[in-house]
Amino acid sequence: MGLLRSYVSGGWRTPSGEGAPLHDAATGEEVARISSEGIDMGAALEYGRRVGGPALRELTFHQRASLLKALASHLREHRDELYALSARTGATLGDSKFDVDGGIGVLFAYASKGRRELPNDTIHVEGAVEPLSKGGTFVGQHIATPLRGVAVQINAFNFPVWGPLEKLAPAFVAGVPSLIKPASQTAYLTEKLVELIVESGLLPEGSVQLVCGGAGDLLDHVGPQDLVSFTGSASTAQRLRAHPAIVRHSVRFNAEADSLNCSILGPDATPGTAEFDLFVKQLVTEMTVKAGQKCTAIRRALVPAERMDDVAQAVSERLARVTVGNPASEDVRMGALASLEQREEVRRSLKALLDAGSIVFGDPERVDVVDADAERGAFVSPVLLRADDPNRAEPHEVEAFGPVSTLLPYTSTGQAVELAARGQGSLAGSVVTGDADFARDVVLGLAPWHGRLLVLDADDAKESTGHGSPLPALVHGGPGRAGGGEEMGGIHGVLHHLQRTAVQASPKVLGAVTGRWVPGAPRNTGDVHPFRKSLAQLRVGDTVVAGPRRVTEEDVAHFAEFTGDTFYAHTDEEAAKANPLFGGIVAHGYLVVSFAAGLFVSPEPGPVLANYGLENLRFLTPVKPGDELTVTLTAKQITLRENADYGEVRWDTDVTNADGESVAKYDVLTLVAKEATR
Amino acid sequence: MGLLRSYVSGGWRTPSGEGAPLHDAATGEEVARISSEGIDMGAALEYGRRVGGPALRELTFHQRASLLKALASHLREHRDELYALSARTGATLGDSKFDVDGGIGVLFAYASKGRRELPNDTIHVEGAVEPLSKGGTFVGQHIATPLRGVAVQINAFNFPVWGPLEKLAPAFVAGVPSLIKPASQTAYLTEKLVELIVESGLLPEGSVQLVCGGAGDLLDHVGPQDLVSFTGSASTAQRLRAHPAIVRHSVRFNAEADSLNCSILGPDATPGTAEFDLFVKQLVTEMTVKAGQKCTAIRRALVPAERMDDVAQAVSERLARVTVGNPASEDVRMGALASLEQREEVRRSLKALLDAGSIVFGDPERVDVVDADAERGAFVSPVLLRADDPNRAEPHEVEAFGPVSTLLPYTSTGQAVELAARGQGSLAGSVVTGDADFARDVVLGLAPWHGRLLVLDADDAKESTGHGSPLPALVHGGPGRAGGGEEMGGIHGVLHHLQRTAVQASPKVLGAVTGRWVPGAPRNTGDVHPFRKSLAQLRVGDTVVAGPRRVTEEDVAHFAEFTGDTFYAHTDEEAAKANPLFGGIVAHGYLVVSFAAGLFVSPEPGPVLANYGLENLRFLTPVKPGDELTVTLTAKQITLRENADYGEVRWDTDVTNADGESVAKYDVLTLVAKEATR
Repeated sequence: MGLLRSYVSGGWRTPSGEGAPLHDAATGEEVARISSEGIDMGAALEYGRRVGGPALRELTFHQRASLLKALASHLREHRDELYALSARTGATLGDSKFDVDGGIGVLFAYASKGRRELPNDTIHVEGAVEPLSKGGTFVGQHIATPLRGVAVQINAFNFPVWGPLEKLAPAFVAGVPSLIKPASQTAYLTEKLVELIVESGLLPEGSVQLVCGGAGDLLDHVGPQDLVSFTGSASTAQRLRAHPAIVRHSVRFNAEADSLNCSILGPDATPGTAEFDLFVKQLVTEMTVKAGQKCTAIRRALVPAERMDDVAQAVSERLARVTVGNPASEDVRMGALASLEQREEVRRSLKALLDAGSIVFGDPERVDVVDADAERGAFVSPVLLRADDPNRAEPHEVEAFGPVSTLLPYTSTGQAVELAARGQGSLAGSVVTGDADFARDVVLGLAPWHGRLLVLDADDAKESTGHGSPLPALVHGGPGRAGGGEEMGGIHGVLHHLQRTAVQASPKVLGAVTGRWVPGAPRNTGDVHPFRKSLAQLRVGDTVVAGPRRVTEEDVAHFAEFTGDTFYAHTDEEAAKANPLFGGIVAHGYLVVSFAAGLFVSPEPGPVLANYGLENLRFLTPVKPGDELTVTLTAKQITLRENADYGEVRWDTDVTNADGESVAKYDVLTLVAKEATR
Repeated sequence: MGLLRSYVSGGWRTPSGEGAPLHDAATGEEVARISSEGIDMGAALEYGRRVGGPALRELTFHQRASLLKALASHLREHRDELYALSARTGATLGDSKFDVDGGIGVLFAYASKGRRELPNDTIHVEGAVEPLSKGGTFVGQHIATPLRGVAVQINAFNFPVWGPLEKLAPAFVAGVPSLIKPASQTAYLTEKLVELIVESGLLPEGSVQLVCGGAGDLLDHVGPQDLVSFTGSASTAQRLRAHPAIVRHSVRFNAEADSLNCSILGPDATPGTAEFDLFVKQLVTEMTVKAGQKCTAIRRALVPAERMDDVAQAVSERLARVTVGNPASEDVRMGALASLEQREEVRRSLKALLDAGSIVFGDPERVDVVDADAERGAFVSPVLLRADDPNRAEPHEVEAFGPVSTLLPYTSTGQAVELAARGQGSLAGSVVTGDADFARDVVLGLAPWHGRLLVLDADDAKESTGHGSPLPALVHGGPGRAGGGEEMGGIHGVLHHLQRTAVQASPKVLGAVTGRWVPGAPRNTGDVHPFRKSLAQLRVGDTVVAGPRRVTEEDVAHFAEFTGDTFYAHTDEEAAKANPLFGGIVAHGYLVVSFAAGLFVSPEPGPVLANYGLENLRFLTPVKPGDELTVTLTAKQITLRENADYGEVRWDTDVTNADGESVAKYDVLTLVAKEATR
């Protein structure tokens, strides 16, 4: 492949100089060379800010989500090219799918969530309108707008595809351009990924850039609207977090660092139970997938003291069946570490761990390999340790970033929770138990120390995605040693790239800012019923006031009989009098909303296609026979759908009595045609 | 007062040594002495973790909110004691109310929000249940649990009461103990505040601690579950952010730093308009309240170039009427700066600003004072500057933390937005205009650079709380230079103290963790209708299945006639056929929910008092005449109210047709008695 190129400032750049060699993890052959010499980092950031950002901000959240979906499909078509290169990183086909398909899955997930949970708009309105005054002329609300900088994404070597895509997806939906900086060891795969992205022509120019090689002075150029997201070692995370430019500009810094994740076997899960087997199987999977090079892998396996021997034996038996070798070979279950340097690092860490424990399975210095050279490739055996004194420091502090895990005994739920916390903050943890009470106690005890917790049992095992798999809908990141970051987590990951701003104004002006009708703002009660208007004609604030209609005693009695809702408050004067909230017969809430619909309806065919739902209904004042109802319906929010000839209209609905008191308030949700058809 | 004491590790501690003197801002007399010598910082933090945290975590969010409300009332009763001491900081009575009443107001606001927006529980469940599998046996949800550390709160000198209370309130509701570290200059007032808190006996021991004097090695002892919140200068914020312990443990660090906030006068607001006057009045208020020592004060006043002279003149006239002097005197409008050192600092900054501008009003070196000694007290005149070249760096970079502001001209909306952004991130900004379009353009342009934006106009002026007032319901904090923090913002401020954790499990186990029924978890359809159960008897998962009921053609026709809802899809077969979603006559959604209520109701008087609302209703499948409806109602969430003999029950409601398809899903909200009364 020669020298890896960077994609910055609108084009592919070949660095100056020779570059450093990158080696095939399994064969030791040179795959490519890498350098960032001559790449102008400051210019790349400025290009993202000046070109990528504005192009993205012209699009709505839905439009960006649609582009992401198209990109996901494009990458899926080309995934074989990524698999092929992925093998050279030491990854088996299974590992490659975890990385490549996982990454594509994140794009699909954000495409879907972006359209379902964000507005088809360029700003996001967050939370309710806050009343800030008695008279209602002064209100507040939070809006979220894209930061005007670049999301600098510094990725780890172990997931050269998933890593960049998992960071790109939420930034892209947010409207913030990305600058991807892969770890050198496996950068050739990320270069290929970005090549596929650029060739697709789907994303706006400037929205994705790539820097292969050292970061150089990149971080010196970050400013107050940029973000830095880092995945890698805890020590590098610390160094970057304290970088002068990051500190000076309060740059949003998100770190995912390796952590000493634990998995806890419940006391109920004795040998022979489904959960015992699940625990053993999951532990072996976490040790061997990606040769244990996962920041979420299980490093500490906490088991009831009396189960130590059983677990040691069962895990060893299973590990003995794991074939190590050429990742491209079909017979191979576990490939190589990413480089010989990584193997040295794992061996060093193992030495430290052995101060506190002993080896149950495997030999750090030798391994039988299939279809490969055990010395030229970065192969290492899975190694299971046991530390019978769980209070020793090493198992809770030293991470061997490879197929290595340590068994630790516990004797009470409290001790298990305490030992887990000694990891000082982890990305993921799991509990394997069939006992829901034990699961609850452990989850609540571990929660403050973890970003994600899995409870594995016979009920969910078949569909569980496993301890080690971050999912786009859930937070990825943990406190303390794990870096204190939060990635993904559904729309949270998008919000991380937006600035939340409180806006205080009159209802009218707040509405002008958010594009939504705000209670207290003027209503437009024109000649035309708003249900006669297509989306092309309808404006927020368009209103119909209808009524009054008197609710009679007969209405209530009839409604009770007709619907079968003969609740005493509607039917039995004496009993209703004793009700502390009513003090007499009241109309059904469902009668009130039904009559309201009868008042605001426009019966003839027109642009309003359906009432598809209703939200936030509150019955505020009891309606008594003789009361007169008036309804005021105001178009509050209009959402165009990108790929349909109709959109959604949310109507603020206020049903009042003759005294002007609100008896019910709610939002009516309708589907309305974009254009009038007749 | 002598040596100020600290309240740590369960008692009041007097430091060793002499301490440094603190002077009355207006008279120069010694008020107290301060030192933290001999205070064991590490022990104080550990005491908070071991005593305060567990005591707080035994309470629910509602219980903590109630204590906060009681504390607010207690402090309100004693506020005169605080006012008296506040005068010695240079504050007028108006300034003191801003500080003291403002702080008490934050407590009341969090007491109210905590009970309305958080569950009466020890954990907070965030967001929806996420489906993670096709078969529904594996689901996820986020829970938020209190961090197990201490919230270290480092406050600025300018708000010795509001500052600590604004940080304490959300931490307390979250269940995290506070360690308050006031700035030395005005620490005697904070000491008095904590004395009132401790004497009240209302808060659990260990939930509030106080360290007067230097922080010593306090930060060296923070760990991965602690938080640090800082208010003060940008330079100190940077130093703390990079503190080794904060970096090493990824400690949540929140900074509010002084920023160069701007206020923008709209082009429409010509002299003679209400908005012109509002702009002038607000600018003078922001310059003089607290003698301009507010991190949210207006430092840059952006006005249309052609209005520079008009604004300069109008502001000067108003400033000329501001009497400066003894803050305890009734005639005085502006008191002293907090100390002579502060005055020196302001004069130094003014010198730098004068490189880029000229003085319009005031003399940095002299001021007429009422009832005071202009040299012994830290008095300074309000100073208005103008910088006719708005591109000079100084006005956007140099902050004089006193009654100082600079007028800057702009010639287009785009330029105004650009100049505002040159502050590199601000806490607050304002726009004064009667033009909603201009307001929208400026707000959307400024939003990424601001934490809070106010639009002031004739409509909201009377009720507006003003440019400089952070409000508990809204975010306080801005990006970049402003520190990148977010305080308050309603429940956001509470969530900052909680760890968000994704929990993955089977529906049953997830329900056991969250205490809520999760779709897919077992339902308990026992012999007793769940509406016959008081809260003492009811359990989540209790279910009634009722039906089927056939919906006839006559039912639909009758409902249309009875309610008046004669929408064509219910009444006109031919027209209904043309509807793209229905393809024929369909039953009213309101008919479906009314019939469902008729099915699940239990008519006789009992513990269910009322159906007070309904949420998240979606009509999923059209109901056609002849369809049979069955409803399944399951207790999903039970919320006990602290001070009532009833609570709230949320019922998962699923109406299905004969094919088992859901036709409508929603939550029914009821009030249910705690105990059976008959």
